[in-house]
Amino acid sequence: MMPRHPAYSGLAAHFERIHRLRHAAAMLAWDRATMMPPGGSGARARAEAEVLGQVHALLADPDLAPRLDAAAGEDLDDWQRANLGGMQRQRDEAVRIPAELVARRTLVNAACEHGWRQQRAANDWAGFLPAFREVVAVARDEARHLSAGATGGAYDALMARYEPGFSAARFETLFAPLVDRLPDLVRRARLPARAASTLPASCPVPRQRALCREIAALLGFDFGRGRLDESAHPFTGGVPGDVRITTRFDPADPLAAINSTIHECGHARYVQGLPEAWHGQPVGEPRSFGIHESQSLGIEMQLARSPAFCGLLAPLLAQHLGMPEDPATLHAHLTRVEGGRIRVRADEASYPLHVVLRFRIERALIEGEIEADDLPAMWDAGMAELLDIDTRGDYRDGCLQDIHWTKGAFGYFPSYTLGAMVAAQLFAALRREHADLDSRVADGDLSPVFDWLATHIWSRASRFDTDTLIRLATGQAIGPDDYLRHLERRYGEAG
Amino acid sequence: MMPRHPAYSGLAAHFERIHRLRHAAAMLAWDRATMMPPGGSGARARAEAEVLGQVHALLADPDLAPRLDAAAGEDLDDWQRANLGGMQRQRDEAVRIPAELVARRTLVNAACEHGWRQQRAANDWAGFLPAFREVVAVARDEARHLSAGATGGAYDALMARYEPGFSAARFETLFAPLVDRLPDLVRRARLPARAASTLPASCPVPRQRALCREIAALLGFDFGRGRLDESAHPFTGGVPGDVRITTRFDPADPLAAINSTIHECGHARYVQGLPEAWHGQPVGEPRSFGIHESQSLGIEMQLARSPAFCGLLAPLLAQHLGMPEDPATLHAHLTRVEGGRIRVRADEASYPLHVVLRFRIERALIEGEIEADDLPAMWDAGMAELLDIDTRGDYRDGCLQDIHWTKGAFGYFPSYTLGAMVAAQLFAALRREHADLDSRVADGDLSPVFDWLATHIWSRASRFDTDTLIRLATGQAIGPDDYLRHLERRYGEAG
Repeated sequence: MMPRHPAYSGLAAHFERIHRLRHAAAMLAWDRATMMPPGGSGARARAEAEVLGQVHALLADPDLAPRLDAAAGEDLDDWQRANLGGMQRQRDEAVRIPAELVARRTLVNAACEHGWRQQRAANDWAGFLPAFREVVAVARDEARHLSAGATGGAYDALMARYEPGFSAARFETLFAPLVDRLPDLVRRARLPARAASTLPASCPVPRQRALCREIAALLGFDFGRGRLDESAHPFTGGVPGDVRITTRFDPADPLAAINSTIHECGHARYVQGLPEAWHGQPVGEPRSFGIHESQSLGIEMQLARSPAFCGLLAPLLAQHLGMPEDPATLHAHLTRVEGGRIRVRADEASYPLHVVLRFRIERALIEGEIEADDLPAMWDAGMAELLDIDTRGDYRDGCLQDIHWTKGAFGYFPSYTLGAMVAAQLFAALRREHADLDSRVADGDLSPVFDWLATHIWSRASRFDTDTLIRLATGQAIGPDDYLRHLERRYGEAG
Repeated sequence: MMPRHPAYSGLAAHFERIHRLRHAAAMLAWDRATMMPPGGSGARARAEAEVLGQVHALLADPDLAPRLDAAAGEDLDDWQRANLGGMQRQRDEAVRIPAELVARRTLVNAACEHGWRQQRAANDWAGFLPAFREVVAVARDEARHLSAGATGGAYDALMARYEPGFSAARFETLFAPLVDRLPDLVRRARLPARAASTLPASCPVPRQRALCREIAALLGFDFGRGRLDESAHPFTGGVPGDVRITTRFDPADPLAAINSTIHECGHARYVQGLPEAWHGQPVGEPRSFGIHESQSLGIEMQLARSPAFCGLLAPLLAQHLGMPEDPATLHAHLTRVEGGRIRVRADEASYPLHVVLRFRIERALIEGEIEADDLPAMWDAGMAELLDIDTRGDYRDGCLQDIHWTKGAFGYFPSYTLGAMVAAQLFAALRREHADLDSRVADGDLSPVFDWLATHIWSRASRFDTDTLIRLATGQAIGPDDYLRHLERRYGEAG
C-alpha cells in the first residue's frame, strides 16, 4: 500500500537520521564538559566537527528542496504540517551557512571554550582574547550569511536561531520597562535589609551531591532516563530518553549547587516531557530557548522560591547539611537581593539587568560597533550604570564569567529574560486555575505544577509558534506585566 | 606545489574522517557501558548504528577503488605503503558487508548486550536466548558475506577481523600442546596445595577505587590522556589521546578489580604509546587483537605476577586496604591455581582451557554444527572435559559470563591465548636483554619493561604484519614453547 504522504514520510526518516547524529554530537559535548581528560581535547573537537559536518551535509542535501516542496502539497495533519515547517526552517538555516564555516565554527569555538576553562580561573583576559577574536569573527561571518536577503539585521539573524519570531527591536520594547524600574527596585531591596543566611560556612561536596540528587528526585527528574553530573558551567544536554544535567559544587556556597540543580531540573522535565511519538522530529523539539528558560525559571523562581516549597526544602537541608534552617529563614535567604556581579548567582530582581548588559554588548559586537578588545570597557560601564557595581580588572567574575560567548552562542542571553517573563505569566495562569496551589505544594504535592506544564507546554513541543503557545496556555500575549507584578510583590515591600 | 602522492594524500584525509566518526562511536559505546541510564538504550543503539553506518558509507564509497589503485602506483615510503595496505583491508571488509547488515548488526547486538546486563545477573538463559538467536543469525550472515570467494571457512572470516593472517587450523595447531599438557598441570597445581589468601573478607569499594588509581599511575597510565571508570565487564575504549579503561569492584574480592585494572593498563599503555604522527590512520592502529592482548597479559601475567612486582604491590595493598600482606604471600596468592569457572578470574594455567572451550563452541556455532539453543550443553560438556567442573544449570557463571558473544564478537577469544603466548615470548626476549630486570623492578624502576615494549611493539603500530613484528622483536616465530616453559616453571613445581 502506498503511504498517504510519501514525500513527507521520506523526510521524516531523513530527519530521524539527523537526530541520531545530533544525539552523538550531544553526548560528545556532554562528555567533553564532564568527563574528558585534557589530552582528549584536540581530537574531540575534530570528531565533533565531523559529526556536525555530517548533519550539515544531510540538511544541505540538494535533493531536500524538491522533497520539501512535494511534501507541502500532501495531505498532512496539523502536527505533520508543523513538523514540515520545522524541517524547512532547519534546511533554510543550513544552506545559508557554507559547510566550511560550520567546520571552522566548531573548531574555533571548541578551542576558545577549552582555553576559557583555565583562563577564567586565572583572570586571564589577555590569554583569552586571541581565541575570542576568532570566535567573534566567525560569528559575524555567520550572521552575515544568515541575514543575507533577510529583513532583520545581523544580530537579529543570530538571535532567531534561539528565538524564532523575535527581533532585537521587540526585545528592546519588552525590556524597556525592566530597565526603567528594576535598578531602583534592586537599590531599595538590597542587603542588609533582608535576612542574612544561617548556612554553615563550609559544606562538604559529597553531602551537597547527595542533597542535589534528592532535590532532583523531589522535582520528578527521572534518573532512569537521565543523569546528574558536574561541570564548570551547569547545563542540560543529552536527548529526551537520556537527559544529562550538570551542576557545580562550591564547598563555601551550597545554595549555588542547589539552585542550579533546581534550574536544570526545570529544563530536564521539559525534555523528559516532550511527546514520545515525536522524538527525533523537528516538531518534537522544545519550542525555543526562551520557552526552555521559562520551564527552568518557572521551577527555580516561581515554584522553588515560594514559601510553600521552602517548607519542603528546609528539612532536606537539615538532613544532608546538618543545618538548623527554618523555612522562613531559608525563604528570606533565597529571595534576598544582593546585586552581585555573577549572573548565575544573581538574585531574581538583578538578573534581567545582567541580561540587558549582555544583550547590548553582543548586539554591538555582532553589528561591528565594538571589537572583542572593547568588551571589558563596555562591560565595566554597563555594570556601573545598571547595577552600580565596579568590575574593573575583574574578568573572572566579569566578562569571562559566562560560557556562552566562548562557544559563539551570541543572541542567547535575551532568551533568559524572555523565559523569566513567560514563567511569571505561566504561573499566574496556573494560580488562576489552582487557587489551592500553595497548600498542595506545602503538603508535598507538586503534581498541579507538573501536570499543568505537561499539558500546556511540554506535550505541545514545537506544535505552535511561541506567541500562539503562550496565548493558548495563558489567554494573553507575551508581555512584562505579570513579571513586574511578581517582582514588585516579592521584592517591592523590602525597601 | 603538487604533492608527491596526491591520491595517497587524499586517501589519508578520507581515513582521518573515518577515524573521527569512529572516535564518536567509541565514546558512545564507552558511555553506554559506563554512564548511560537504562532509558537511553533504544535511542543510543540507533545513534551508534547511524554513526557506524556513516563509517561504512565512507569505506564503501565507489570512488575509493580507483583512488586506492592510483595511490598504489605512487612513490610511497614504507609506513605509507603499510598504511595503504590497511586502507585496502578496511575497504575490502566493508564492501563485503551490505550497509543494511551493518545497521542490523549494531541494533541486534546492542539489544542483546543491553538485556544481558540484567539477564546474566538473574541466571536467565531463557530470557537471553531470543536476542542471542538473532545475534548468531546476523553473525552467520556476516561470515557468509566475508568468506564468499575466500579460501578459508565462515569462522576463519570472522576471526580474520581480529587476527589477520591467522586461521582456525593454525590456532588448533598452536593450541594442541596446551590441550595436551595444561589439564594435567592444572590438576597437579590446584588448591589447597598453594597458599590461601590473607585478604580481608570485605573491602569497601571507595578504598579499592583509590588503590586501583594508584596502581594505574604506577603502571604509567597517563590520566591526562585517559580515565578509569566502572562497567559490568572491564574494557579499554576511547582513542589514543583519551583512553578509557574500566574495571569492576566486588567488595568481597578486591583482587578482581586490581587484576583487571593491571590488565587494562597494559592495553592502555599500548594505545597511549602508538606513534602520534600516525594517529587517525590505519597504520597507526594496534596491530591485532592478539598483539593487544600480548600487552595486557604481558603486564598482568609476566610483569605484575613476578615476585619483584609483588614487592611493589604489597605496600599499596597494606596502605589502601589495611592488609598485613607480605610480598611472598601475595605472590603465592596471585599465582594460586583454582581451576574456577569464570574466565576473567581464572588462574593463568586454566585460562587457555577456557579459551579453547569458547574457540570450539563459537567455531561450531558459526559453521552451523550447533544452534544457539545448544550452547549450554556444549558448554557443560567442555567444562567437564577440560577443567573437570560441573557447570550444569549455572548460566550466570557459565555460558552467560562473557560479554563478547552478546555483541557478536565471535572469533575474538583465540586472540587472548595468542596474546598470552606472545607475551611469554616478548618477556623471554626482554629478559635476555635485561638480565637485571627483577632487581630493577624490585627497586620500583619499570622503565626497562615499558621502554622495551615502546620500542618493539607500541611505536611500530601496524607497520608490520603480526609474524614479522614478533620475529623482529624476539628473533623467533610465534609458537607455544616460551609460554609452556613459563607455565611449567611457575606452576609445575607445585604438584
